[in-house]
Amino acid sequence: MFEFEILNKSSETRARTGKIVCSHGTIKTPIFMPVGTLGSVKSLTVEDLDHCSAQIILGNTYHLYLRPGCDVVEHLHGLHKFINWDKPMLTDSGGFQFFSLAKLAKFTDKGVSFQSHIDGSRHFFSPQKAVDIQMILGSDIMMSLDWCIGYPADEKQTLKALEKTTMWAKQGYDHWMEQSKQQGQIKNSLFGIVQGGMYPRLRSISAEQICEIGFPGHAIGGLSVGEPKELMYEMADYTLPLLSEKKPKYIMGVGTPEDLVELSGMGTDMFDCVMPSRNARNGQLFTSKGNINIPNAKYRFDEAPIDDTCSCYTCRNYSRAYLRHLYKSKELLAYRLNTIHNIYYFLDLMKKIRKAINNDSFLKFKRDFYLQRGEN
Amino acid sequence: MFEFEILNKSSETRARTGKIVCSHGTIKTPIFMPVGTLGSVKSLTVEDLDHCSAQIILGNTYHLYLRPGCDVVEHLHGLHKFINWDKPMLTDSGGFQFFSLAKLAKFTDKGVSFQSHIDGSRHFFSPQKAVDIQMILGSDIMMSLDWCIGYPADEKQTLKALEKTTMWAKQGYDHWMEQSKQQGQIKNSLFGIVQGGMYPRLRSISAEQICEIGFPGHAIGGLSVGEPKELMYEMADYTLPLLSEKKPKYIMGVGTPEDLVELSGMGTDMFDCVMPSRNARNGQLFTSKGNINIPNAKYRFDEAPIDDTCSCYTCRNYSRAYLRHLYKSKELLAYRLNTIHNIYYFLDLMKKIRKAINNDSFLKFKRDFYLQRGEN
Repeated sequence: MFEFEILNKSSETRARTGKIVCSHGTIKTPIFMPVGTLGSVKSLTVEDLDHCSAQIILGNTYHLYLRPGCDVVEHLHGLHKFINWDKPMLTDSGGFQFFSLAKLAKFTDKGVSFQSHIDGSRHFFSPQKAVDIQMILGSDIMMSLDWCIGYPADEKQTLKALEKTTMWAKQGYDHWMEQSKQQGQIKNSLFGIVQGGMYPRLRSISAEQICEIGFPGHAIGGLSVGEPKELMYEMADYTLPLLSEKKPKYIMGVGTPEDLVELSGMGTDMFDCVMPSRNARNGQLFTSKGNINIPNAKYRFDEAPIDDTCSCYTCRNYSRAYLRHLYKSKELLAYRLNTIHNIYYFLDLMKKIRKAINNDSFLKFKRDFYLQRGEN
Repeated sequence: MFEFEILNKSSETRARTGKIVCSHGTIKTPIFMPVGTLGSVKSLTVEDLDHCSAQIILGNTYHLYLRPGCDVVEHLHGLHKFINWDKPMLTDSGGFQFFSLAKLAKFTDKGVSFQSHIDGSRHFFSPQKAVDIQMILGSDIMMSLDWCIGYPADEKQTLKALEKTTMWAKQGYDHWMEQSKQQGQIKNSLFGIVQGGMYPRLRSISAEQICEIGFPGHAIGGLSVGEPKELMYEMADYTLPLLSEKKPKYIMGVGTPEDLVELSGMGTDMFDCVMPSRNARNGQLFTSKGNINIPNAKYRFDEAPIDDTCSCYTCRNYSRAYLRHLYKSKELLAYRLNTIHNIYYFLDLMKKIRKAINNDSFLKFKRDFYLQRGEN
């Protein structure tokens, strides 16, 4: 089950709104997906996510494969039932974690061997196995196994990773088709991932090869891996138009509120990032007027909410002074209240972006967004 | 504002139900008070506490005085507004923390000097200051400054602490009366604390002296300080009848589910303890059939809720397998889901105790309670 429909296009930019219909429901795009690494968006319940208007969340295949393990998730009837989330879910393939977290990852034609970052145990992911695991998890949108490389990387190495990524994409796609045929239906869709580092020529090759395979959606991987912000924008701007127009375009692991605005303007339909939840746990809160560090002494007596234009649970009920106190005292409640606010802020921003695109006033929205932040 | 009315008395035991009316509402007794040390019952929001049917929570004066400080709470219009809790609240006097946490506490006729356990800074609490701070916090029920001693303690030392406690109780009481007169009303009530260690003779002296002062309620302090369980029961059983029958009787810092049942049977009206919340954070969960350790490997595939007779949010939505996974992965959500269950369990137990007393079937309830736990 997977459909994508473009609803409105900005006349001034490449921005667009659309909807994705998948097994567990409908998603309005462009959308930001909160990250629930281990089957929980850190500190939040599904009701908290509902309050934040989360339409889809992300789970990390690498993490879930190691803990609690596929056998547990399978026995508990899939990830949705296990974690009590009945809306759409996307899982990544593990590719990014092999790059960022696993020890001694070795990439061959057949897949990736790696050691667990938890106990050093040895494992192997083939493109087929990455699909099998994600089918057990039961995600609405699965991601193809890819080879993500860091920045900087030379052209030769980047080309090698790209070629492997294409080879695995084909193998994963074929395996997904076979498995779905055996099931008699396509319950889980599969997206392909474009690599190519910071080389436009290689991004072109990768985009062409990946789009040719026939995935229902495409992602741009290998961004936000340490490169300067401008280069990230440049590569996204270059690569996005190379992806099939009628299919969703997903930029992985991005980004800041500014990134969401900029990249939506370039035609991105989907985002994910740990930033709102991770920063919340570090006391950094997003507001319409810029970011604030809640442990700052100046909030000690501050009766105001984090953001007086925000309607989240935290802003409706708690002062900066209380949030500062909780954070400074390392109270567990601090992490939850902060995370609710940040996730709400990100998803509310996406709502405003969609509204601006639907009204064909995206550029005005973008100007106002920067004006409010004093960054015009 | 403080009224206490006894509603029903058990014909078989000294158990009784009653109601306390105080500034922020009415409390049905006997009651267990979840502990919100620093202005938060760890990991829970006030809505979570409502879900658990919490009628009153406890705040720790020592902790709140040090962080965020009285100036902050005063500026934010008192503890209720600060933490967003509009139901009754009790604060202790700091006495227990001077015993358990502070460094170099020195007890004189005038009060206690101590060093902060956080930064070693020096402070002094007089009985008057303990009242002043609690009036700033705005608690419905304040506690008189006391000298709590450990176990074992010799009779001479115990007598000394008792005498100081009585002296401070009188001074605190007089100060409370004056302050309330100045305010033109009694917004915050003040309870006296009986000490006397494990010496019945000293408990008698303390009870007589404290009850003579005229407090609207009385507490038994200095229990659960390391003594054997049987001795704790013995001292409670001995001391409870010595307290004014028509006023609430509060045993401080107690206890386990068994303690709540046993001590309610002896006529205790109020309890508080960090046990349900602290144990939750250590993965120990209370059930009608006894306690379970959620990290135990046997729960890896367990689809059942913590307790299939429990109606709490956690039990209605999550399996032991998921809770084990969250706990083993150190996910923040684990602490909250576990705490909701344990607090719910404790407050539900109190509800059952009140019901049994009201139906005059307390002994039958008690037999069933132990039977279910396999501890008959």
